[in-house]
Amino acid sequence: MHCFKIFIITLAVLAIFSTRAEESLPKNQNGQKLANFPSCTLENGATIKPCKIGYRTFGKLNENADNAVLIPTWFTGNSADHSYLAAKNIIDPNRYFVVIVDALGNGVSSSPSNSKTQADGDFPLFNIGDMVDSQYRLLTEVLGVKQLHAVVGLSMGGMQAFEWAVRYPDFMTNTVAVIGTPKLPSFDIALWETRNRLMELYRLCECEAALQAVVGVGMLGDMPGTLAANTQPKGIAPTMENRAKTYFESPRQSWDHQRQAQAMIKHNIARNLQNDMQQAAKAIKSKVLIIVGKDDRVVTPAPALAFAKMLKAQTLILDNGCGHGEPWCEADTFAKTVSEFLQE
Amino acid sequence: MHCFKIFIITLAVLAIFSTRAEESLPKNQNGQKLANFPSCTLENGATIKPCKIGYRTFGKLNENADNAVLIPTWFTGNSADHSYLAAKNIIDPNRYFVVIVDALGNGVSSSPSNSKTQADGDFPLFNIGDMVDSQYRLLTEVLGVKQLHAVVGLSMGGMQAFEWAVRYPDFMTNTVAVIGTPKLPSFDIALWETRNRLMELYRLCECEAALQAVVGVGMLGDMPGTLAANTQPKGIAPTMENRAKTYFESPRQSWDHQRQAQAMIKHNIARNLQNDMQQAAKAIKSKVLIIVGKDDRVVTPAPALAFAKMLKAQTLILDNGCGHGEPWCEADTFAKTVSEFLQE
Repeated sequence: MHCFKIFIITLAVLAIFSTRAEESLPKNQNGQKLANFPSCTLENGATIKPCKIGYRTFGKLNENADNAVLIPTWFTGNSADHSYLAAKNIIDPNRYFVVIVDALGNGVSSSPSNSKTQADGDFPLFNIGDMVDSQYRLLTEVLGVKQLHAVVGLSMGGMQAFEWAVRYPDFMTNTVAVIGTPKLPSFDIALWETRNRLMELYRLCECEAALQAVVGVGMLGDMPGTLAANTQPKGIAPTMENRAKTYFESPRQSWDHQRQAQAMIKHNIARNLQNDMQQAAKAIKSKVLIIVGKDDRVVTPAPALAFAKMLKAQTLILDNGCGHGEPWCEADTFAKTVSEFLQE
Repeated sequence: MHCFKIFIITLAVLAIFSTRAEESLPKNQNGQKLANFPSCTLENGATIKPCKIGYRTFGKLNENADNAVLIPTWFTGNSADHSYLAAKNIIDPNRYFVVIVDALGNGVSSSPSNSKTQADGDFPLFNIGDMVDSQYRLLTEVLGVKQLHAVVGLSMGGMQAFEWAVRYPDFMTNTVAVIGTPKLPSFDIALWETRNRLMELYRLCECEAALQAVVGVGMLGDMPGTLAANTQPKGIAPTMENRAKTYFESPRQSWDHQRQAQAMIKHNIARNLQNDMQQAAKAIKSKVLIIVGKDDRVVTPAPALAFAKMLKAQTLILDNGCGHGEPWCEADTFAKTVSEFLQE
């Protein structure tokens, strides 16, 4: 694997498992916008109050208000991290009104770490459906979108894309779920449950050992070859130590990570359809593209592939030894497949 | 995958990541023996004092004292756990004098958890070579073995087998390294470094959350399909909670786990040969059989396969979707290959 790919995969893994990208771009600058709602009512009956939703837009809404493409964010990612999708014309802003929206709990939209009234552990549990509902309100109440051309999401963004397809089937024309899943299988749940224990331990000990373990668990989501290419055996412990030092800007972010992980753990697009994925598949009206990484050990591909079969959806299995990093490793194939699908 | 295989893989994973098997057999019963040395001098200059080495034997030493097969133990495993290799005639006790030896730090041989004079964190760091040296002394000073027919080891036992082949090349005729490695690559080190952080956190918080995370990290070493077959998504958190409750018989065992993991992290059979694996390969005189699991994410197979090429060793790559559990999942192939190799 040549160096550029390794570099890109490293970026991807950092994006997934750190908040670094966020650091490079101060909030509310370079295009960050906020929609302020008095409150957001959640599926579990709780309320986020007040409820702000961060977003960035690229391109323009057309007269019919039907050329918007929504991009929800991956775990701990923010709208700045995802701007490359518009900047590189993977989702072409000359053609589409690209709306990148900060998922609840990402530290930009309402989150445990930035709420004054529902701080830290007082912030209510929300689910992937609540993220999607907040995005629907942004599109319809603030941006005047009448029909989504597509939702395109990666990783936790892919989970939101699946949720969108079931929750607002008439509002959208295309669904692109990349390294996402309609429901987390046991393995993925083990990952997030483990990570959440580490968040608890971090708050308990107020020590870096817990964050070093978080970095370590991130490494275990890598492909062994990718990790070996990035980090020498002797460099593993120092890398864990160094990344732990800057892992959080504030300890409060541990609650953001925990709440988003909790949302993923409970994610199940058939939860209101008798847990029947066939019913979920039948509820979907949009055209669907499903992209997975064959050996992905962060969002394992089996549930998405099984759902793709039910839908008879267009499916792309990336298999370049990059695990969860495939859409970056196989960037050209990813970009070409998505942009062609959206233009069909 | 049918239920028996799943059961066997579960046993294997428990054996690797828990101390349950040990619980079922009280120490010093059912054939447990102990060799008591006044001290064991370690490669780093430190001393274990006194130094006891646990073992079990099956079959009889022949007149030439050259029919012994040594089986060193896997991570946290003990000689009771490994007795099935003799009981099932995988290493036939009618033919061989089978010596299963408890690795240093396993809680039976001298260990942080059972040392009165060097308790817990005062127990010196030892390496895989020190395990092997203690076993050589047992064979030569206590059991009167003149030549080993073979060393057969699984997982950390496979690491010891590789070490044996380089350290005592004239003393042994055959080496069988199963799901082992001559040196840990970055990925494997990330696993043990992460686990050791959890041992530290456990002692710091004296809380089950740390052990729940240990169980979780064990699950992440599984194949996703195996984990899904064993544990429903809803069962993941309860399983982590339940296993954590009985994970240790005593908190002192956290030091046993840590010291053995530290031994693995530094494992490198070429460490005294200018870190040159070619020199290590040249030092070996025994015939070598190397067995790996293709998708093993506990002991990843790349270093063993590279070393097999240098040695032109007989190699078996097990690929039945069982990861580190392949020798149990593919039990017949494993048994047949090993027993035939030893009879050649």
